[in-house]
Amino acid sequence: MRRQDKEVTDSTAIAQVLDTAEWGTLGLVAPDGHPVLVPLNFLHLDGRIYFHGSPAGEKMDCLAHSGAATFLVVDAYAQVPSYAFDPVKACPATQYFKSVLLYGQIGPVTDPARKAEVLQALMRKLQPEGGYAPITAGDPLYQASVNGVAVLELVVARTSAKFNLGRALSADKRAAVTGVLTQRGCPLDHRTAAAMDEIAGA
Amino acid sequence: MRRQDKEVTDSTAIAQVLDTAEWGTLGLVAPDGHPVLVPLNFLHLDGRIYFHGSPAGEKMDCLAHSGAATFLVVDAYAQVPSYAFDPVKACPATQYFKSVLLYGQIGPVTDPARKAEVLQALMRKLQPEGGYAPITAGDPLYQASVNGVAVLELVVARTSAKFNLGRALSADKRAAVTGVLTQRGCPLDHRTAAAMDEIAGA
Repeated sequence: MRRQDKEVTDSTAIAQVLDTAEWGTLGLVAPDGHPVLVPLNFLHLDGRIYFHGSPAGEKMDCLAHSGAATFLVVDAYAQVPSYAFDPVKACPATQYFKSVLLYGQIGPVTDPARKAEVLQALMRKLQPEGGYAPITAGDPLYQASVNGVAVLELVVARTSAKFNLGRALSADKRAAVTGVLTQRGCPLDHRTAAAMDEIAGA
Repeated sequence: MRRQDKEVTDSTAIAQVLDTAEWGTLGLVAPDGHPVLVPLNFLHLDGRIYFHGSPAGEKMDCLAHSGAATFLVVDAYAQVPSYAFDPVKACPATQYFKSVLLYGQIGPVTDPARKAEVLQALMRKLQPEGGYAPITAGDPLYQASVNGVAVLELVVARTSAKFNLGRALSADKRAAVTGVLTQRGCPLDHRTAAAMDEIAGA
């Protein structure tokens, strides 16, 4: 990574991004060499990433060609205006964010019991309030669906995380930025100011 | 596209997603064949997409290898719970979203005047309230920055857009879903209910 000041290696901070994001972007490579990007809900479980979807379509065509996959999760924070840093120059304007990149190999999960387990864990993540019969491979309610759906597993070989939340700012400069954000008050601004203080240990 | 019911070809609806999103994900292919994903602020201008960044780093290593690029913009709406559709089965749970995929070739913009024009338009998009000196190539305030920054242009060869907002639902079913969302009231729920009605022409 080029910008070492933004690099994050703390596994708890990285897991927190992976556990709370609802969706991320799966990158594959098409047989013609073009990158293919697919936004997907996902499950982070035991250090691996799981997806579900149709057994037909572009994702599966790519997989037949290459299992090389990259998965990106972005937690977007505020767009910070240049005047938070400089009264004249536009250059310091920046986007605050947390991002996690996972590089690995992806392939199908074929065992119906494991597929059901993953689908049920995904439901627990995305619909924590319940309101459905739990998914098991043996339940006649779900048997055809579990068999019919594709469940994919990304085995992660390398993780790279980058948080741009002003960690390297002096306390004075950080206060100037959080002040501008709090005053502007756009939807992500208060959340961003809080995250800046948290990452700086303030 | 496999799911024709979600396909969108209306260029105004597609442009609206590209004009309002602050960031998207650029997909490139690394020299070793692995997909590379980079979340970036961007500018949609005259049917092309522009990015800026460091002239060093992974993006540029990829470009030296191949100009094949894919750009994804996601406008995420609510996670719709299964019980909005079915009282027992988990399967109908779905993520509502608008997504636009652009496939093309990417390369650097080298003319300083054009680079400055793009950077200034990007500032107008991301910081509409102003608060900075306008960027021009001739201004000594910006000359070194304009020369030093990389500006990339994606020339789009193919566009594919998918909106999952319940367009094919009957009026009764749509009302059931918007009712569940309005009652739950999570941050994206009201926005999703409004978008569902809009896309259905209700």
